Amino acid sequence: MKLGHWLDKVREQKPLVHNITNLVVNNIAANALLTIGASPVMAYAKEEAADMARIASALSLNMGTLTPEVVEAMLIAGQSAAEANVPIVFDPVGVGATPYRNETAETIVRTLPVRVIRGNAGEMSVMLGIGGAVKGVDSSAAGANLPQAMKEYAKENGIVLVATGEVDYVTDGESIWSLQNGHPLLSAITGSGCMLTAILGGFVGVCPKEGKLSDYAEASVAAITAYNVASELAEKLSAGPGTFQAHLFDALYSMNADTVDSMARVEVAR
Amino acid sequence: MKLGHWLDKVREQKPLVHNITNLVVNNIAANALLTIGASPVMAYAKEEAADMARIASALSLNMGTLTPEVVEAMLIAGQSAAEANVPIVFDPVGVGATPYRNETAETIVRTLPVRVIRGNAGEMSVMLGIGGAVKGVDSSAAGANLPQAMKEYAKENGIVLVATGEVDYVTDGESIWSLQNGHPLLSAITGSGCMLTAILGGFVGVCPKEGKLSDYAEASVAAITAYNVASELAEKLSAGPGTFQAHLFDALYSMNADTVDSMARVEVAR
Amino acid sequence: MKLGHWLDKVREQKPLVHNITNLVVNNIAANALLTIGASPVMAYAKEEAADMARIASALSLNMGTLTPEVVEAMLIAGQSAAEANVPIVFDPVGVGATPYRNETAETIVRTLPVRVIRGNAGEMSVMLGIGGAVKGVDSSAAGANLPQAMKEYAKENGIVLVATGEVDYVTDGESIWSLQNGHPLLSAITGSGCMLTAILGGFVGVCPKEGKLSDYAEASVAAITAYNVASELAEKLSAGPGTFQAHLFDALYSMNADTVDSMARVEVAR
Repeated sequence: MKLGHWLDKVREQKPLVHNITNLVVNNIAANALLTIGASPVMAYAKEEAADMARIASALSLNMGTLTPEVVEAMLIAGQSAAEANVPIVFDPVGVGATPYRNETAETIVRTLPVRVIRGNAGEMSVMLGIGGAVKGVDSSAAGANLPQAMKEYAKENGIVLVATGEVDYVTDGESIWSLQNGHPLLSAITGSGCMLTAILGGFVGVCPKEGKLSDYAEASVAAITAYNVASELAEKLSAGPGTFQAHLFDALYSMNADTVDSMARVEVAR
Repeated sequence: MKLGHWLDKVREQKPLVHNITNLVVNNIAANALLTIGASPVMAYAKEEAADMARIASALSLNMGTLTPEVVEAMLIAGQSAAEANVPIVFDPVGVGATPYRNETAETIVRTLPVRVIRGNAGEMSVMLGIGGAVKGVDSSAAGANLPQAMKEYAKENGIVLVATGEVDYVTDGESIWSLQNGHPLLSAITGSGCMLTAILGGFVGVCPKEGKLSDYAEASVAAITAYNVASELAEKLSAGPGTFQAHLFDALYSMNADTVDSMARVEVAR
Repeated sequence: MKLGHWLDKVREQKPLVHNITNLVVNNIAANALLTIGASPVMAYAKEEAADMARIASALSLNMGTLTPEVVEAMLIAGQSAAEANVPIVFDPVGVGATPYRNETAETIVRTLPVRVIRGNAGEMSVMLGIGGAVKGVDSSAAGANLPQAMKEYAKENGIVLVATGEVDYVTDGESIWSLQNGHPLLSAITGSGCMLTAILGGFVGVCPKEGKLSDYAEASVAAITAYNVASELAEKLSAGPGTFQAHLFDALYSMNADTVDSMARVEVAR
């Protein structure tokens, strides 16, 4: 499965990605998008959320540090994105930890035509109502048979689902991709999942405007694999999470389509 | 004095630390907690502050970039923590610089059962009303005989006090610990004190639930010493504050109990 | 043209710079100010904005992630700075991208006695009403003959204007400085312009209190050149944007007046 050409496409088209993300990762999410050639913008005010989402190539929503103002901005931006046919990626950070996060995640998924949902195994299990547990914002347990439950939900709702962990799963309701790349140091830096959610915005932002679900799925598989391959390259130069963070950006910035294709370890099942 | 076993305990128990901290340090405070094995969560909305504080092992409050909404969330989270017997650490960043910071610090200390207060020498002097000066958020002068004044305040109020600087002082009202580790490059990176406040949450979060004040004091001495030892290790690999920041995380992540115990320079006086 | 002595002056006077900046760069803007010897403080609440601005040596306003509360705080801080004769630097991030940003930029420039405006070529073109284009927060096109238009606006309004790009332009309405230093990796890290806006606050903060416009212009030329020279030094040690960010802080911290003067490439025309 060739995936690297998606990275080329991002570098050529430089999609504008409108992020409404959390206070912990604003800086690193923007840097992650720059490394792959996308153009990040963070815009939180309800006064401009609709205007910014409308001109973006993708809208990436992340509920890591919610407030009512941020939720309102997300819904306004999402509505505007929907009208302009701009794809929406959603990261339900910490869903399962508090009722407020549960309600917000439900509101977003019910109200907006989200194209891709990404969470860790615990978060995705909570989203699907199959058990699982979340401790703060960390996954502490996945529900039983998560990939299969994801596939059914994806098919029913026409959404690409991504669960990241030691193995990452992507499904569009037809296929389940198992992604084997990555390195444990990713979980030693805060926001490694949130950076991926931003990057997913970049890749989804170069899908054809009337994108099929399978396009969004393949873009997601490509984004995750590129990110994970970069983590493997970065780890070789690192002595811990501090230097790893720096080398991760270097690797993302320096890698090309061939790097991705030569190192990708992806399996697909129907 | 053996301190390293506290680090082991944090790594084993992985305490969830609920942080309400400032806009400058959200990312590095979370990373600092991850390096020592704790599980950080940042949650600012009054809609979830009580729920998150209740399930945490410690609540760390930091007033670096106040707004009324953040203050309200701090008080709600603090009340919930108090009811659930979750220890509270408080960092009065920039107290003395503006009336708003003075009032907020006073409200928090008067309203909540804070277990540990950490500030720089200027901030702690202002807190104790013994003079001292603060320029923005930097200490510019300590009050006279700060350690002794801290000891009296600690005894009277049943709070562990920490003043960081070239030498760091910790007191529980019975003893005064003088901590000699550390490196000047810590003051060349923003938020080095705030990261320590987050880490204090991790160490205090593994104290016995009905902790004695001396437990919180020893946990604080251990946290500060581990952090300072890491700064000494990091400095050897650094050419300035940028590389120092990365190596500091590496050192915190790589160090173990023996590293702390073999390098600790701590004196105690009654 | 000797510029390095400005850096010495910042290191000697350690000016307090009050920043109201954006959620993406709070951490790196503070670190940038620390590296040059200034004392950064971030204060966003309208409850303390006036108090903090009054005691600062400079006020640096940046509209990267606006909200109505932040705009209100900017206006309060700006009014207080004006009354206390504290110079104001303004960065109209993303002006041209949404009506809300356009209105806010206009309000700030019309209401406050801004001393220095810094933007990328697209933003400055929009500010001057000479065309140009902005994509999110990135410059996508400059207006025709931008430096000359800047000079006229500067003369008419008594403001120093700075447009950064491959070549940076500074003008006080009498002269136009062309600054040739810098490295493309600056545009591969988020907030490189915003860090410069913070640093401009540090340099402008050591101008004589009743500063002439030409003082602010020379301070700006010195600030930009120091920053750009640091980027050239950092690049030699870097393998991409992640390590570049760390080495940039190291270089800013380690450089001295001679480094700046020996590497400066500045031309001036009247």
